[in-house]
Amino acid sequence: MDTRIEDHARILVDWSTDVHSGDDVVIAAGPEAHELVVALHRELGERGANPTTLYTSGEASRAHLRAHDEEFTLPEHTLALYEACDVAIHARSDPNLAALNDVPGTRLAERSRVHKPITEERLSTRWCLTQHPTNAHAQTADLSLAAYRDFVYGAILRDWDAVEEYQDELRRRLEEASTVRVVAGETDIRMRVDGMHAINSAGRHNMPSGEVFTAPVPDSVEGTVLFDKPLIHQGREMGGVRLVFDEGEVVESSAERNGEALDDLLHTDDGARRLGELGIGTNRAIDRFTKNMLFDEKMGETVHLALGRAYDANVGAEREGNDSAVHVDMILDTSAGRIEFDGETIQEGGAFVWE
Amino acid sequence: MDTRIEDHARILVDWSTDVHSGDDVVIAAGPEAHELVVALHRELGERGANPTTLYTSGEASRAHLRAHDEEFTLPEHTLALYEACDVAIHARSDPNLAALNDVPGTRLAERSRVHKPITEERLSTRWCLTQHPTNAHAQTADLSLAAYRDFVYGAILRDWDAVEEYQDELRRRLEEASTVRVVAGETDIRMRVDGMHAINSAGRHNMPSGEVFTAPVPDSVEGTVLFDKPLIHQGREMGGVRLVFDEGEVVESSAERNGEALDDLLHTDDGARRLGELGIGTNRAIDRFTKNMLFDEKMGETVHLALGRAYDANVGAEREGNDSAVHVDMILDTSAGRIEFDGETIQEGGAFVWE
Repeated sequence: MDTRIEDHARILVDWSTDVHSGDDVVIAAGPEAHELVVALHRELGERGANPTTLYTSGEASRAHLRAHDEEFTLPEHTLALYEACDVAIHARSDPNLAALNDVPGTRLAERSRVHKPITEERLSTRWCLTQHPTNAHAQTADLSLAAYRDFVYGAILRDWDAVEEYQDELRRRLEEASTVRVVAGETDIRMRVDGMHAINSAGRHNMPSGEVFTAPVPDSVEGTVLFDKPLIHQGREMGGVRLVFDEGEVVESSAERNGEALDDLLHTDDGARRLGELGIGTNRAIDRFTKNMLFDEKMGETVHLALGRAYDANVGAEREGNDSAVHVDMILDTSAGRIEFDGETIQEGGAFVWE
Repeated sequence: MDTRIEDHARILVDWSTDVHSGDDVVIAAGPEAHELVVALHRELGERGANPTTLYTSGEASRAHLRAHDEEFTLPEHTLALYEACDVAIHARSDPNLAALNDVPGTRLAERSRVHKPITEERLSTRWCLTQHPTNAHAQTADLSLAAYRDFVYGAILRDWDAVEEYQDELRRRLEEASTVRVVAGETDIRMRVDGMHAINSAGRHNMPSGEVFTAPVPDSVEGTVLFDKPLIHQGREMGGVRLVFDEGEVVESSAERNGEALDDLLHTDDGARRLGELGIGTNRAIDRFTKNMLFDEKMGETVHLALGRAYDANVGAEREGNDSAVHVDMILDTSAGRIEFDGETIQEGGAFVWE
């Protein structure tokens, strides 16, 4: 076994989910993550914890969803499993990222709506989402499997304690800031963040991680942003997305590629035309875009803004966060730009001023 | 996909477990059963049922068991899953039947004891144990994978309604009988079965099935039996096992191969020296011994006797069944022998008298 798989399992169990004796752990993984599943079993055994592994398969889900033409019902057994567990570790490991492409989006959305109590139970545990490298993900990243493994483990096998400490300066400043401005190429966008909470994301719920994020005050966003990285929503890739905000709302939009998908997204609901998240990536081991948001949004020297719903944890008691059925992250490169908090430059040319 | 996999899935869902809309179904399968898992998802989708699939892996279990040196605790999340489900379908599909061979038997036994509430919950659902053909099982059967697939599907893809009807004559006669005698080669063994219940096993809980079975009155077994088929207990294969019973108890024993394993078995506890089951196999599509009890004990023209515990369902209200920590089936060929109920021959040369 690639010893990096064992190191990955150890980080998930110790740092991300803090497993201890007697914990009941759900692992969810696909067939290609077998070695990670075995490594996790060993780590959980050493800690006296109890694993139960769910087999996730896009091909099986597709078969079920396409055959199922009744109203969906909530799987009470799956809900009971998550209600009773302490820890949930989900490892992305699909053998084919297009497995669900011939399932109507409305069916997927309807199932998600009915399964929402399961998602909420899962997110109430010590949960972590991670990645096991497969050929399908490597191909999407335009990499060989060997090179993709190097990329994935480069991003994951880090000293997360040190990352958390490193990011704390950024978190503290963002928490105290009232306004944020991002200037990069054609982008010049301003928003208020006062009353919102900044979160230091250092590998507890996402592995890899490496970002600090907050929620903008919904009506405060002003200016123009050009997202220079491709962006995928419901399997459709958009490129060169340009948005103009006025009083928090998108008032002009265009895309160099797949403008229809952008229009569909913006018309999902009112909240889809406002921002729900501002995130600042810090993971410089993520040195390329791989069309996988678990990695892309953590990339060092980038900022991401999400159209749609805000995370509850970011929204202060005196504030309302943006609400929507969607949350779509879009990424812009700040390596040749700057980020200002309350008029003070905190990142310039990709480097934080305190580095 | 081999269309026999789809036929197998349909039989499991319709005949074995009678799935209907809204049922919450646990599938448990290993990585090599992927196609059966996909086929089951389609069938469950068509019926409006909800699947959740557990990934079973001997290699992962081994890693967990060998690393785990504390007392075992009950996995409450797995218990909750089975408590809340309606149907449980377990598909044997191991890639290596020796995967647990370097885990001490005491650890396996201890885990089984702690997990007993889960087993009991599973057996309180509409459950079925079945087989997906893998190379490991084919190799153990001394068959190519293609030939093993023919064997497995030959045994499974049958008209189970007709099998149930065919076996009902045997079940009725065994239910009404007071004594059973089996004569075959060196074997001549007699026992009482009055007050016990005969069960028609036609593919509900075991797929394949094809047997009628009851429990002997524990103290009533008399005579000699030579089990001419090899027999495996805890991974150890015994051959040519000869047992002499007096007042229900084994008073003489010998084995041509691995007599130590037989001694260990007989000394497990008092109940391990008495019989807990008498079964009569009827599935003539199972035409060879494959060292897999799910198939072997159903073989047409055989009888099996189990040392150890009796099934509750066989034991009448006025009776006590044999109790033991073990239940080890042993098979003898009756194709050149005969079976008598109350002195009347009911099978001779492998054929039932009413055939």
